[in-house]
Amino acid sequence: VLLTQMGWGDLGAFGEPSKETPHLDQMASEGMLFLDFYTANPLCSPSRAALLTGRLPVRNGFYTTNAHARNAYTPQDIVGGIPDSELLLPELLKKAGYTNKIIGKWHLGHRPQFHPLKHGFDEWFGSPNCHFGPFDNRALPNIPLYRDWEMIGRYYEDFKIDLKTGEANLTQIYLQEALDFISKQQASQQPFFLYWAIDATHAPVYASKQFLGTSQRGLYGDAVREIDDSIGKILKHLQKLGISENTFVFFTSDNGAALISAPKQGGSNGPFLCGKQTTFEGGMREPAIAWWPGHIPAGGVSHQLGNVMDLFTTSLSLAGLQPPSDRQIDGIDLLPAILQGKLIDRPIFYYRGNEMMAVRVGLYKAHYWTWSNSWEEYSKGIDFCPGQNISRVTTHTQEEHTTLPLLFHLGRDPGEKYPLSFTSEEYQRVMERISVVVQQHKATMVPGEPQLNVCDKAVM
Amino acid sequence: VLLTQMGWGDLGAFGEPSKETPHLDQMASEGMLFLDFYTANPLCSPSRAALLTGRLPVRNGFYTTNAHARNAYTPQDIVGGIPDSELLLPELLKKAGYTNKIIGKWHLGHRPQFHPLKHGFDEWFGSPNCHFGPFDNRALPNIPLYRDWEMIGRYYEDFKIDLKTGEANLTQIYLQEALDFISKQQASQQPFFLYWAIDATHAPVYASKQFLGTSQRGLYGDAVREIDDSIGKILKHLQKLGISENTFVFFTSDNGAALISAPKQGGSNGPFLCGKQTTFEGGMREPAIAWWPGHIPAGGVSHQLGNVMDLFTTSLSLAGLQPPSDRQIDGIDLLPAILQGKLIDRPIFYYRGNEMMAVRVGLYKAHYWTWSNSWEEYSKGIDFCPGQNISRVTTHTQEEHTTLPLLFHLGRDPGEKYPLSFTSEEYQRVMERISVVVQQHKATMVPGEPQLNVCDKAVM
Repeated sequence: VLLTQMGWGDLGAFGEPSKETPHLDQMASEGMLFLDFYTANPLCSPSRAALLTGRLPVRNGFYTTNAHARNAYTPQDIVGGIPDSELLLPELLKKAGYTNKIIGKWHLGHRPQFHPLKHGFDEWFGSPNCHFGPFDNRALPNIPLYRDWEMIGRYYEDFKIDLKTGEANLTQIYLQEALDFISKQQASQQPFFLYWAIDATHAPVYASKQFLGTSQRGLYGDAVREIDDSIGKILKHLQKLGISENTFVFFTSDNGAALISAPKQGGSNGPFLCGKQTTFEGGMREPAIAWWPGHIPAGGVSHQLGNVMDLFTTSLSLAGLQPPSDRQIDGIDLLPAILQGKLIDRPIFYYRGNEMMAVRVGLYKAHYWTWSNSWEEYSKGIDFCPGQNISRVTTHTQEEHTTLPLLFHLGRDPGEKYPLSFTSEEYQRVMERISVVVQQHKATMVPGEPQLNVCDKAVM
Repeated sequence: VLLTQMGWGDLGAFGEPSKETPHLDQMASEGMLFLDFYTANPLCSPSRAALLTGRLPVRNGFYTTNAHARNAYTPQDIVGGIPDSELLLPELLKKAGYTNKIIGKWHLGHRPQFHPLKHGFDEWFGSPNCHFGPFDNRALPNIPLYRDWEMIGRYYEDFKIDLKTGEANLTQIYLQEALDFISKQQASQQPFFLYWAIDATHAPVYASKQFLGTSQRGLYGDAVREIDDSIGKILKHLQKLGISENTFVFFTSDNGAALISAPKQGGSNGPFLCGKQTTFEGGMREPAIAWWPGHIPAGGVSHQLGNVMDLFTTSLSLAGLQPPSDRQIDGIDLLPAILQGKLIDRPIFYYRGNEMMAVRVGLYKAHYWTWSNSWEEYSKGIDFCPGQNISRVTTHTQEEHTTLPLLFHLGRDPGEKYPLSFTSEEYQRVMERISVVVQQHKATMVPGEPQLNVCDKAVM
């Protein structure tokens, strides 16, 4: 699994006008492009927890109840993290003999009990958190990097990021880690799960020297080019080692492009509304490509509604394992969609915190709540929908539409600009169908213990 | 030349999320995709006049001086049309032995002296105007269709368009006309210029019965699918007849998608700002594909700044002809860009009426005037930028920026959301360069006699 923070519109294959992702575009032309693929949350930590557990954040605990419909993640002073009761993908794969490695950002808690090697991973190279900073080194230390159990340095101090030039060679380090791990596994003929979760496109954006200034898109584009180049090298390495036909590769993103960082450090969500942090399409619809030469028909395109949680179930399926039966799993097995072109009927739920903001069923999306961000944030220049303003939709107060949800047809209106008329026959017919889906979902929903409620500087 | 009214974002190859244009996408994968291709005007008539003359509308007369920066076109009661003094592409190609046919919308005037067969075309099947209507048949007759000199019927009366269902088989008729013409030319071994200017995606949007309801995108998508299918059939026909390697084919659009007709009858301009009628990227940046098997490298992508006016000069070049030397020609020969991958330095000018609103030089675009539409129109619900609102940019009054143009970097900011700071070094440096380009342009500009100033019902 290759995971970044890129927007749907950041790849040439998805219509980025500079078309600077030749390797990802080639990956798509050799594999399958998913046009309707989603994350489970418009923010990093919950999205990654969902990917590794196959469960919505509201079930696995990666949310807060401190306020209604609030996004939450794992800052340095967070007390919580991934509960032991959660079964992570590497824990299960280990039983089938897989060696599991995470390279890059973990984001599921930084206290010792949440360490990736306590949750199924055999190896780790990366950080528990994003490369924010630099901080002072007393109240707020710089984010550490680990090799397995050992803390080997800190961002900015030992792993340089030049905030003026944007230069950092971290993606190259992460690439080399991936190539080495793959070589080692191939040499020992051991099956492996590699979770390559790099963060060059997350602000503060960086790229290696040889990529700086190479993009039409500025520093963000330089970072995209380096990631694209690295993914090309990983795929080529698999082919060179002769294991590409035994290796299922999936590329996607943990949330939409952070438009708040635009134009210098933000990406593109193509024709979609708003970005990261929001439950509009720009916040949660992700670029996605499956690649498995000899198995996936080259140049395939799928309209299967997919979700990062499906990578949990699909990976288990590839390993010949069943998902756990003692808990609700939200991810589905995508293999029938990928290998046989089937379309599996399933809804997509858009959450903030423990509130279901919206749901997609087929081509229709119903908003039960709308919120971009608060007036308070907005007045400070924090804008998740820059240049976009849709009455009753991009609201700066939490607007409830639970009695009459705002309904959009994402085929005719991918930008969520034109709510269907409440009095139309189409609205009535579709909402009847969607209401059943939502009722079923809510009736069986048992929220997990919220993990992201408490921060305490003492845990840093 | 295959000309439609589609937006940059309407093709799968350009990131339309439903990805429903397999034949155009294949045309791109066999040919060359232009990512930075423009029309000469954000409205139909001037754009088409520019394509056929290789000259900006302000030179060839396709503009009005009735008001400042007004778009104008050729309604039924227009007195003017393409002047005899203009040399049209078919007039010149005729000298090299080409047979010239226009299928579809002419739009360069409907009085007898403006008839396409008076301006170099040998054959015509189509209409002088768009398929507006139906009108009453006294003050406002329905738009006529012609076969060559003969008026053979009228839209809605003899050529049905069902406004309720959107059904009309016109694209099939236009397709058959194209296939027949190509067969005839191949049989007689005569070189030909075919100008296939269909209008199914122009409101009122229509599609044939077999395409109705086949798109995720509604009726507009049905029309796109039918055009896509037709273009696939035209290319296949060329291949079947064995003349594809002798036939240069270019697909593009006369203006951006008409967002005012969205969501039911409007298309997509992808990540770009606003649509038809405006001089923002959404109004003038067009999808474009060149196809010429055996000559154009398959799967090519070009960042050459192109313009519909270049089709004039490029077509002449293909025919071994020189452009006229007695007048200013704005179109350039794209063959070095297409065949050798060269990048030719040239600006793009964005006009409304006789006002240069903006100019693009390299990746920079400077707005000297901004205007979306008037408050009067806007208050009636006419909106060329639905859901988009960028302070000082999408203005409802004509805003002059001639002393301090608004400057955008289209690589970092394709959506024209973030004007560069006037005080930045980048602004100063770039504007110096752009000012020279603009000065040169204005110094040599000799506007033509405006043709679109006078309407008179007597000429209908």
